[in-house]
Amino acid sequence: MPDYQAFRVELTDKIATVTINRPEKRNAMNSAFWSEIIEIFDWVDRTDEVRVVVLAGAGEHFSSGIDLGLLAQAANLVGKDVGRSAEALRRKILELQASFNAVDRCRKPVLAAIQGYCLGGAIDLIAACDMRYATRDAQFSIKEIDMGMAADVGTLQRLPRIIGDGMMRELAFTGRHVHGDEAQRIGLVNRVWDTQAQLLEGVMQLAAEIAAKSPIAIRGTKEMIRYMRDHRVDDGLEYIATWNAAMLQSSDLRIAMAAHMSKQKPEFAD
Amino acid sequence: MPDYQAFRVELTDKIATVTINRPEKRNAMNSAFWSEIIEIFDWVDRTDEVRVVVLAGAGEHFSSGIDLGLLAQAANLVGKDVGRSAEALRRKILELQASFNAVDRCRKPVLAAIQGYCLGGAIDLIAACDMRYATRDAQFSIKEIDMGMAADVGTLQRLPRIIGDGMMRELAFTGRHVHGDEAQRIGLVNRVWDTQAQLLEGVMQLAAEIAAKSPIAIRGTKEMIRYMRDHRVDDGLEYIATWNAAMLQSSDLRIAMAAHMSKQKPEFAD
Amino acid sequence: MPDYQAFRVELTDKIATVTINRPEKRNAMNSAFWSEIIEIFDWVDRTDEVRVVVLAGAGEHFSSGIDLGLLAQAANLVGKDVGRSAEALRRKILELQASFNAVDRCRKPVLAAIQGYCLGGAIDLIAACDMRYATRDAQFSIKEIDMGMAADVGTLQRLPRIIGDGMMRELAFTGRHVHGDEAQRIGLVNRVWDTQAQLLEGVMQLAAEIAAKSPIAIRGTKEMIRYMRDHRVDDGLEYIATWNAAMLQSSDLRIAMAAHMSKQKPEFAD
Amino acid sequence: MPDYQAFRVELTDKIATVTINRPEKRNAMNSAFWSEIIEIFDWVDRTDEVRVVVLAGAGEHFSSGIDLGLLAQAANLVGKDVGRSAEALRRKILELQASFNAVDRCRKPVLAAIQGYCLGGAIDLIAACDMRYATRDAQFSIKEIDMGMAADVGTLQRLPRIIGDGMMRELAFTGRHVHGDEAQRIGLVNRVWDTQAQLLEGVMQLAAEIAAKSPIAIRGTKEMIRYMRDHRVDDGLEYIATWNAAMLQSSDLRIAMAAHMSKQKPEFAD
Amino acid sequence: MPDYQAFRVELTDKIATVTINRPEKRNAMNSAFWSEIIEIFDWVDRTDEVRVVVLAGAGEHFSSGIDLGLLAQAANLVGKDVGRSAEALRRKILELQASFNAVDRCRKPVLAAIQGYCLGGAIDLIAACDMRYATRDAQFSIKEIDMGMAADVGTLQRLPRIIGDGMMRELAFTGRHVHGDEAQRIGLVNRVWDTQAQLLEGVMQLAAEIAAKSPIAIRGTKEMIRYMRDHRVDDGLEYIATWNAAMLQSSDLRIAMAAHMSKQKPEFAD
Amino acid sequence: MPDYQAFRVELTDKIATVTINRPEKRNAMNSAFWSEIIEIFDWVDRTDEVRVVVLAGAGEHFSSGIDLGLLAQAANLVGKDVGRSAEALRRKILELQASFNAVDRCRKPVLAAIQGYCLGGAIDLIAACDMRYATRDAQFSIKEIDMGMAADVGTLQRLPRIIGDGMMRELAFTGRHVHGDEAQRIGLVNRVWDTQAQLLEGVMQLAAEIAAKSPIAIRGTKEMIRYMRDHRVDDGLEYIATWNAAMLQSSDLRIAMAAHMSKQKPEFAD
Repeated sequence: MPDYQAFRVELTDKIATVTINRPEKRNAMNSAFWSEIIEIFDWVDRTDEVRVVVLAGAGEHFSSGIDLGLLAQAANLVGKDVGRSAEALRRKILELQASFNAVDRCRKPVLAAIQGYCLGGAIDLIAACDMRYATRDAQFSIKEIDMGMAADVGTLQRLPRIIGDGMMRELAFTGRHVHGDEAQRIGLVNRVWDTQAQLLEGVMQLAAEIAAKSPIAIRGTKEMIRYMRDHRVDDGLEYIATWNAAMLQSSDLRIAMAAHMSKQKPEFAD
Repeated sequence: MPDYQAFRVELTDKIATVTINRPEKRNAMNSAFWSEIIEIFDWVDRTDEVRVVVLAGAGEHFSSGIDLGLLAQAANLVGKDVGRSAEALRRKILELQASFNAVDRCRKPVLAAIQGYCLGGAIDLIAACDMRYATRDAQFSIKEIDMGMAADVGTLQRLPRIIGDGMMRELAFTGRHVHGDEAQRIGLVNRVWDTQAQLLEGVMQLAAEIAAKSPIAIRGTKEMIRYMRDHRVDDGLEYIATWNAAMLQSSDLRIAMAAHMSKQKPEFAD
Repeated sequence: MPDYQAFRVELTDKIATVTINRPEKRNAMNSAFWSEIIEIFDWVDRTDEVRVVVLAGAGEHFSSGIDLGLLAQAANLVGKDVGRSAEALRRKILELQASFNAVDRCRKPVLAAIQGYCLGGAIDLIAACDMRYATRDAQFSIKEIDMGMAADVGTLQRLPRIIGDGMMRELAFTGRHVHGDEAQRIGLVNRVWDTQAQLLEGVMQLAAEIAAKSPIAIRGTKEMIRYMRDHRVDDGLEYIATWNAAMLQSSDLRIAMAAHMSKQKPEFAD
Repeated sequence: MPDYQAFRVELTDKIATVTINRPEKRNAMNSAFWSEIIEIFDWVDRTDEVRVVVLAGAGEHFSSGIDLGLLAQAANLVGKDVGRSAEALRRKILELQASFNAVDRCRKPVLAAIQGYCLGGAIDLIAACDMRYATRDAQFSIKEIDMGMAADVGTLQRLPRIIGDGMMRELAFTGRHVHGDEAQRIGLVNRVWDTQAQLLEGVMQLAAEIAAKSPIAIRGTKEMIRYMRDHRVDDGLEYIATWNAAMLQSSDLRIAMAAHMSKQKPEFAD
Repeated sequence: MPDYQAFRVELTDKIATVTINRPEKRNAMNSAFWSEIIEIFDWVDRTDEVRVVVLAGAGEHFSSGIDLGLLAQAANLVGKDVGRSAEALRRKILELQASFNAVDRCRKPVLAAIQGYCLGGAIDLIAACDMRYATRDAQFSIKEIDMGMAADVGTLQRLPRIIGDGMMRELAFTGRHVHGDEAQRIGLVNRVWDTQAQLLEGVMQLAAEIAAKSPIAIRGTKEMIRYMRDHRVDDGLEYIATWNAAMLQSSDLRIAMAAHMSKQKPEFAD
Repeated sequence: MPDYQAFRVELTDKIATVTINRPEKRNAMNSAFWSEIIEIFDWVDRTDEVRVVVLAGAGEHFSSGIDLGLLAQAANLVGKDVGRSAEALRRKILELQASFNAVDRCRKPVLAAIQGYCLGGAIDLIAACDMRYATRDAQFSIKEIDMGMAADVGTLQRLPRIIGDGMMRELAFTGRHVHGDEAQRIGLVNRVWDTQAQLLEGVMQLAAEIAAKSPIAIRGTKEMIRYMRDHRVDDGLEYIATWNAAMLQSSDLRIAMAAHMSKQKPEFAD
């Protein structure tokens, strides 16, 4: 595994732990962050040995969002001709979006473990993860509104499906801070723990559970839920029938059934 | 009403009670189950006298899901040629889906009353019902993941609209058991009761309430909510306008208004 | 500002307060209501000075829904020929829907403050607002079902995205009354207060907060969340990229960043 | 094969010829027609030996459309209550549509061979076929407009994709007769012949060609084109990738490649 | 009927003739044009007596497109702040689009009769009509490309459904002139005549034919074809079933059938 | 510009000519072809100097489609476990599709110049181009059907929008050869010439015309037509309004109008 500037990546027992690693900068998302996250999730995607990902932040905070220097730099794309500047900005935004699309499209489940600040771009990031877990003192804020802009790398697109339309608008219009317990109540995170140590232990346990399942079944499940975010029920039913037409011919089904009969734990190939 | 092998069906006071009736097998879904459910819901759909359906399970458990013998049988569809096996499997899955589509498309509201186990295929089934009610000790699990497969008869397609995307993924990836109270908290069921007797009484009361409403109004309401699961708001507005263009010419509107004025209970034709 | 028969409209500190003003009729929606609401929200939309709207009801109740006289009048559209009556009814419904579409499409956030009755058409109305807040003793009911009809001016179309599919069906089929606390629990309102005075104070505070943000950023945010109600994630990402291609060239981004650096409150042009 | 009242069905060399067989009534679509066509296409669908279907009309005309007696009968569904009549009519229309949906969804290609009249319901029927071929003197007319109604069993839904929006509207608004040559020019039929004998010979030749191809490949191709009528390009690309993931593991690919190398005609299993 | 500055409107024998009437300016679309067209088509829509519309241009040319003065004026919307200018421009474009949406959404068929120039905005206009007819010497050009802009009032949105994707791109990228015969060949117009007199006579004849049909049937037909431009086949089938549930209860069906039996011309109420 | 194994790329007068350059292999698409085409179109996309692309084939044929060796290699992805093989195949197909998506998504217009064979994968390729031009003796065939497979890199997805549903199915089911003149008649190509020299001259002339237009206007036009292939008319209208909100602030509009007034040729920046 190569060295990364903005991340620390480890692979143990089929679980990849991807840690944003700029604690002295509250894990602000700098230029290295945006490009390395694509490389890392490409590696996750094509490495059979990786079955599940835990995404965390080193230090006291998950992440304070986009590095302001980087945002200022985007402003520099604005040249003399408004049309040509618009085109340059549009492409820059699409490029940044691609970084989080890599997380969203990754075939392996991604669990976010969140403590401290989770602000602005960090919300865009966790909205692209499969599940979110937090400490009680985590603080979530759609901070883009205070930067004078509409969030454009995923929060406004993915979060409404997670927390519902009504609360979504309040958080997006006000940028107010939401703490762990409320985050759980509105469905933003699935569970909260008291301390960061407990959070990581809890999330690693969940990850281990998922890593023990049939990888074929996990991928099909993720693909289907992701598909349903944007498609009709009848299209989804047809798609899973086509998908399982191949996948039910895998040996994993036989292995699972045999294990079930003999009350043993099944072992699935990567 | 004909005799069924896997069900018991009763019609009282415009409420059809459809009970899965293989308690000695924890109401596992065998071959008879999958075909009879279509016949039953076709009968429900075309019988004007039936205004609402309660779907229950006889004995201690709602249902433990698909009969494993049946699942093994599906494996037998796998022949020498992968392509031809895929086609056979695809059609088998579409056939099984049709059984629960019959519940989903039924023009009368379907209320599920759930106690004990509600596992695997049983989740697919209740996701196709209109509303879900349970006892406190009910246990829900998307068990397909432990059979080495992605759920393919409706859970992954219909449940995200009911419980939200975040918790959906956790339950689908881990297959963990959810009990009554948590089920209510995440929106999987609308209400819980302590005992099965209380559950049935509560659900029958709700059913009776619904049975007393204008059947024309109930059908329009169900059609519209079902439509909105998959369509845009503007399309939905146009559709209800076209629908009500005919339905507001029904006498039910007049009957309801007259009853409202005279503070009496309205009586609607079937 | 002109005088309205069914409303009272005020503009203070960039907040427009739009109050349904027929307290002696429990703010029932009469003919003036349906046409004036369009005029008012057109004015809101084109008046740069208005940055946010609070929608309230004068007196003890938010609104008891459509005026029954008006409903009876719609029945008069039914003539001899069923087809021609259907066309007339269809156009009448589309016309009524247009009144609430004006609220939904308004570029400024609309906060509903609800006390007492919020019945029938009033639910259609608040479902077209951005956020909903209530007193503990507020009472919500999808009362159309008791008028012998399917709700056709927005409730069945917009509410499922707000409260989820399962509870939606129960409320629409039974028309049962939901009080403030349950309304918050199921996501129908974002917060509840004990008294009407507290409610109004709380909502005005929220409105003031929103009015202080960049209007360019607020409009983009509202447009995107509204867009996501009906579109795919990938379409949403492309749309915000195109939108922000122009909007990030606005001076609001610079003003916000400068204010952030100097820890001062930014001032944005209308 | 059972005997049919409205059809004659033959199976020769993997080609099923389905002939509307009421020449004395200009093959008008009577009650038997609408139910038998479902049975026939169900048989086509599940009979591996059938690889392609030719749909023809006995005698001088393909079909003059729906039997007027049947249409009058539908009028009898209109009872006292407009709402309940509307529901009955709606279900009757959906039932009639199902007859032609069986043609549209059939997994094997369906070639229509058309001579003489092809009026009203007959256009709905051929719009549900894969390809259309005709004699020079064939006459096409969307005759429903002259019955005082909008066509409701498929013409208005499927034909615009075939002949384009502009000419579609002229034909639907005027009901004017289109002859073979113009039909070819506007894309309604693929080819015309001078005589009925030539037409049948030509169509049987095409059918024989198609019957010799890999049935796995033909089904995938039909499914994909049908899918693209209603879906986005990116969804279609994802769907074919999922489909071919299984189908490319079939032996047909190997058989075809081997035949190609050895310049021989491949033989595919049913 | 009021006097219009940019149009001449006549109503004879249920046919409204709407003529762009600035021949000395080649019928360029000035400010009056854009607002009057909305009023006119609103009048068309709500006037039962109008059953069909012919849209023509006075003098030698149909229309040379948007008045350049008006385009220059739009440029004046560009102020200091790029974001606020973008918002103003966006709303201006949506406003101009609304003028042609009024033609597109009009419930009565609109037939365009085109001679001479049909350039730029004129193509946007005719793409919103139901059918297009021309003289041999008509000249069509998507001239926006030569104004340094992408066409934004309908050409790029509606024309691909009419002439197909391949030729669409050539015409939009090059702006080259297409004459009557080629226009017919590529499906842009349905028929061409040698002279303007013949064109008008031919189109009036078609209009008269359409005006004699059941207005209920015509409206349903138009609504359905318009719906199919943007919806799936299955949605379209469900929509027409719901629509006809009311409309088949109209007397027009009976009148048409009786006329058919007695071989007489039916007379339909407006 | 780097050297390519499967292509020759030139840039003259703002026109990039991309020539498939394996004439001795009839320009069969080998492994280098599939990866280099992505690199080339990425370069096209980001190089401002390139305004339009001509895609051609060296020698007597445009291309005979996918290299059979490469197809055989894909077969090698099939391992022991059907499920895991399916996943590998699915990803391989998505990877191949990405090569032609790069052509489809390229912001500059792509004109295909076709002589001789254009078979199998070559049809998938030209369906991803903007426009197609050919010699009279060009031969088109959807040859995948004779390889025992459904075409999976774009033909079945993109071609129906270009040639219509009816002829599409005939060509896809039979794989029959279509020559230049018929190709033009059915809309597959826009124009045919007698010789390859004339073809190239004609296409280069068209390319030069397009290269002289405002690049801002050309990109907007392409984006919109591409968008309309998959979206609704109302969505398209909203999208162009948002797009042009920025682009009409470009100087190209002013330059074009000034040139128009002074009857001179405008000069646009890259």
